[in-house]
Amino acid sequence: MFSLVNTSGAIREPLAEFFGVMILVVFGCGTNIMVSTTSNTAVAASPKGDWLSINFGWGCATAMGIWVSGGISGGHINPAVTLAFAVFRDFPWRKVPAYIAAQVAGGFVGAGLVYANYIHAIDLVEGSRHIRTVPPESPGTAGYFGTYAAPYMSNGSALYDEFLGTMVLLICVCALTDTRNGPPPPGLVPLAIFLLILVIGIALGYQTGYAINPARDFGPRLFTAMMYSRKVFTFRRQYWLWCPILGTILGAQFGIFLYDTFIFTGNETIINRPNKAARAAHLHAMNTETRKPPAGTAVDP
Amino acid sequence: MFSLVNTSGAIREPLAEFFGVMILVVFGCGTNIMVSTTSNTAVAASPKGDWLSINFGWGCATAMGIWVSGGISGGHINPAVTLAFAVFRDFPWRKVPAYIAAQVAGGFVGAGLVYANYIHAIDLVEGSRHIRTVPPESPGTAGYFGTYAAPYMSNGSALYDEFLGTMVLLICVCALTDTRNGPPPPGLVPLAIFLLILVIGIALGYQTGYAINPARDFGPRLFTAMMYSRKVFTFRRQYWLWCPILGTILGAQFGIFLYDTFIFTGNETIINRPNKAARAAHLHAMNTETRKPPAGTAVDP
Amino acid sequence: MFSLVNTSGAIREPLAEFFGVMILVVFGCGTNIMVSTTSNTAVAASPKGDWLSINFGWGCATAMGIWVSGGISGGHINPAVTLAFAVFRDFPWRKVPAYIAAQVAGGFVGAGLVYANYIHAIDLVEGSRHIRTVPPESPGTAGYFGTYAAPYMSNGSALYDEFLGTMVLLICVCALTDTRNGPPPPGLVPLAIFLLILVIGIALGYQTGYAINPARDFGPRLFTAMMYSRKVFTFRRQYWLWCPILGTILGAQFGIFLYDTFIFTGNETIINRPNKAARAAHLHAMNTETRKPPAGTAVDP
Amino acid sequence: MFSLVNTSGAIREPLAEFFGVMILVVFGCGTNIMVSTTSNTAVAASPKGDWLSINFGWGCATAMGIWVSGGISGGHINPAVTLAFAVFRDFPWRKVPAYIAAQVAGGFVGAGLVYANYIHAIDLVEGSRHIRTVPPESPGTAGYFGTYAAPYMSNGSALYDEFLGTMVLLICVCALTDTRNGPPPPGLVPLAIFLLILVIGIALGYQTGYAINPARDFGPRLFTAMMYSRKVFTFRRQYWLWCPILGTILGAQFGIFLYDTFIFTGNETIINRPNKAARAAHLHAMNTETRKPPAGTAVDP
Repeated sequence: MFSLVNTSGAIREPLAEFFGVMILVVFGCGTNIMVSTTSNTAVAASPKGDWLSINFGWGCATAMGIWVSGGISGGHINPAVTLAFAVFRDFPWRKVPAYIAAQVAGGFVGAGLVYANYIHAIDLVEGSRHIRTVPPESPGTAGYFGTYAAPYMSNGSALYDEFLGTMVLLICVCALTDTRNGPPPPGLVPLAIFLLILVIGIALGYQTGYAINPARDFGPRLFTAMMYSRKVFTFRRQYWLWCPILGTILGAQFGIFLYDTFIFTGNETIINRPNKAARAAHLHAMNTETRKPPAGTAVDP
Repeated sequence: MFSLVNTSGAIREPLAEFFGVMILVVFGCGTNIMVSTTSNTAVAASPKGDWLSINFGWGCATAMGIWVSGGISGGHINPAVTLAFAVFRDFPWRKVPAYIAAQVAGGFVGAGLVYANYIHAIDLVEGSRHIRTVPPESPGTAGYFGTYAAPYMSNGSALYDEFLGTMVLLICVCALTDTRNGPPPPGLVPLAIFLLILVIGIALGYQTGYAINPARDFGPRLFTAMMYSRKVFTFRRQYWLWCPILGTILGAQFGIFLYDTFIFTGNETIINRPNKAARAAHLHAMNTETRKPPAGTAVDP
Repeated sequence: MFSLVNTSGAIREPLAEFFGVMILVVFGCGTNIMVSTTSNTAVAASPKGDWLSINFGWGCATAMGIWVSGGISGGHINPAVTLAFAVFRDFPWRKVPAYIAAQVAGGFVGAGLVYANYIHAIDLVEGSRHIRTVPPESPGTAGYFGTYAAPYMSNGSALYDEFLGTMVLLICVCALTDTRNGPPPPGLVPLAIFLLILVIGIALGYQTGYAINPARDFGPRLFTAMMYSRKVFTFRRQYWLWCPILGTILGAQFGIFLYDTFIFTGNETIINRPNKAARAAHLHAMNTETRKPPAGTAVDP
Repeated sequence: MFSLVNTSGAIREPLAEFFGVMILVVFGCGTNIMVSTTSNTAVAASPKGDWLSINFGWGCATAMGIWVSGGISGGHINPAVTLAFAVFRDFPWRKVPAYIAAQVAGGFVGAGLVYANYIHAIDLVEGSRHIRTVPPESPGTAGYFGTYAAPYMSNGSALYDEFLGTMVLLICVCALTDTRNGPPPPGLVPLAIFLLILVIGIALGYQTGYAINPARDFGPRLFTAMMYSRKVFTFRRQYWLWCPILGTILGAQFGIFLYDTFIFTGNETIINRPNKAARAAHLHAMNTETRKPPAGTAVDP
């Protein structure tokens, strides 16, 4: 039978990332849609969830996405994480494009799966199957998929919000996978990350919708560009680019920089590797290795 | 004294599945009933729970059901899981009928235990001990036991909803029990499945009541067929058959197919076994083995 | 300095049970009081918790009580559990009186600690520091400590409710500590019991207040007999005796009977020990052993 | 590159405590702010969280703070814990000043990071960017950072509340790190402490805002002294000193005293060390040791 067992990591790793983000978005955007639509009495007599449900939904969604991909691809399921590990922890740059493409594709497909599931509920909220609105229009159901800032937020504040959220995300992810810092057993790292995403949503989630992951935002946003309108890319000019993409990528870089500089004691980071020759040798070894899980794996069994 | 210690697996394994589903339904349907009846002021001054309570209730219920049966029977507690492992992972077909019968019986008995517990509250909600209503009649307390689709859902959408929910259930269950993919320690797999059922309820639970398990729906529905009326089997014609039974079974098959094709690297799946002779030999070994836990155990200690 | 290190288990084990139940009641009854009093606008502008908070409170409280005592006394913190293990699992009968006395004393002291903490809030709810009411009087703040049935519950139904709750409690506790049934690692059994108590509260908690533990009810009730009135013992005649004491003890016996008969395969239970001589020898060994943790420990490290 | 890998523990341990408390306060005070400001319709159409969100927020925040610092500094992230281990468990006194200074600094910086993030929302709640109010003034947004007692609480009751909360905190922390008492695996201690902080918030959190940690209160309070006014230090005269500082420190001392006297059997506590010479030898060994994690580590891998 058809099987991918013997294919190289070049195919299998991005596939795992694809399914990881797909699961993340099916559960996460599914939560957004179910909680939001059922607060409309045309859909349900009483709301089926509240903001805490959304926080739990995204927390569990992230844990499941990592468990689905962890042992194969490292369970990044987030381009900001992939880029942070590429810059600081020698995750091979040659793998980065396929990882990010797979992550975005997973977000796109996941959005499609839940859009199909909730199409009647969205019709009821919009008032017709021929209407689809994008924030700041009301009801703005495109906001179930991509993230949009609260009206009172300045662009600078929105950028800072995503930067801060992804910065603390990376500090914690680095700690949770640092065997010198008392982390959970590898197979339970996703459980700890469940708590981490839960609290990011509770403490930092409202103002910009806590993207903290470019693929979780861009994949579904691309889907709504097709099903809704191009307005998803013109909200506040290039909001989609500055906040959920650049804000998260920069925050991740700064978070791992802080961790590797002030806490990390391993030598797998560029921060702790003064000798250029040693680093070059290490990088060469990394780039010629083909079948093992990548360095910087979130869940390395 | 009377004891089942030395009985063969042919009795003990289905017994474990029986108790697993019984616990699942006592906690799960108990949650449905308590949350729903206490929102009626005849029963309680203020509601004792909300939709998030229902999600936590079913999540914990599933974890407990698996812990009760995991080491004996594999902790399937779901015919869709049993059939998925039979088709793809060589779970012995000769065990399937007893497993499914025990799962349905456990659901039936569990429903009876909580019906007896909440009979006065149900009387108060129905208005009399002589009235029992089935959705779409109001209040439709039969809906505490079996699952019924929201009014706006088409039959096709309802089928897709259960298909999607069980598909992602199986993708995640396969990952959580795949020793090559960084799963939790075996004794903590039910903890991860708690998170999984929690998020399925939060993200995909409203429109069809997230059966995602034919026995969890059919056992209690059979009980209501006796205590309420045959209308539980005539709601939208054969809704009970198409959505909570066929929708979940097909979704489970597709979910494990995706996992085994694109992520799984073990050779315990038909996907990864090109050599017919090797497969036959493996199947023969499985079918002549009698006392060990079945293959495809969710919790294999 | 003064130390109990070298004292025999006859002192240290009941002390651990004392502190375990004290922690259970400080957190559990503390939750009841905080959630209930803050729903009164004289105490707080908005409620600080709801029914789900109560469920989480008791779940965490139980986990902490077991962690505090687990490795010393076995972490029973519940006379119904102690008696179940004495009857079925050879927990030494000579230890039972001290265990139960310590458990009830822990409940009494825990109730006193939180009563002192919330005395001003209780004054505000009662309307005066000179008034203390017992259910069914309103507001009935004695109900923060002992358990009282909902008005519509018959005595028989109340008994059944506690019986059912404690029966499923014991089935699950037996599974979670059965090394032949895929349990969590010993140090994480309290985490699983957190989920168990959480779901018992969500699914079976309202009608009788889920005592499921004679000491958790009787200790605090005794405290309210002193601070409130003897009415706490005359509610529905001997409600306190039949439901939270006998109902839970009988439910626990039936739960462990079901588990040991149909699921358990170990020989530590009277169910699986046909040979009287072997059993007598085993019992003798148990009763002469003095310093080791008791058999039937919930958390045996 | 610049790196702290080879620096002595005298720098690295306080740095870890700094980041641990910073993470604690970013998530914890962030939760306070987000839940509180979004209940104002000028900020959000519907509240983004409730009291239970606050409890989960602080629970996760504490777990993350410990994971970030656990293997380096012991994960105290709380001066009351540091002092309890110094008095009872031979944590070296020479390390105490740097630990506490780092913890307070972490709280200060964490408060600044979330203040910047929510500055527009705070402006909307206060009504102007030129107004900042301190409890008991309304809206009193300084209360998002430091803790303030409910109006009906006497000073004595407020002190007792913090004393009781920190006492049970220490009893449980001692149990969760006592290898003779069935604790979780070291890397999962923060998970158990998540449940512990969750229940302290649910059961004992309202009346004084559950500081239970002098640095979590004093660091952010110092920040508000700069951004708001000195009133944060004059609320009820020296409330800030008596309740969140002395109340918590004394409660921690009493909690560890109870645990070490009645439950602990190790000889790492002054309670169990009758021989002065042996103790002096032990202390000397502790104080000359430089690079290893300190004794009394909450998370000792």
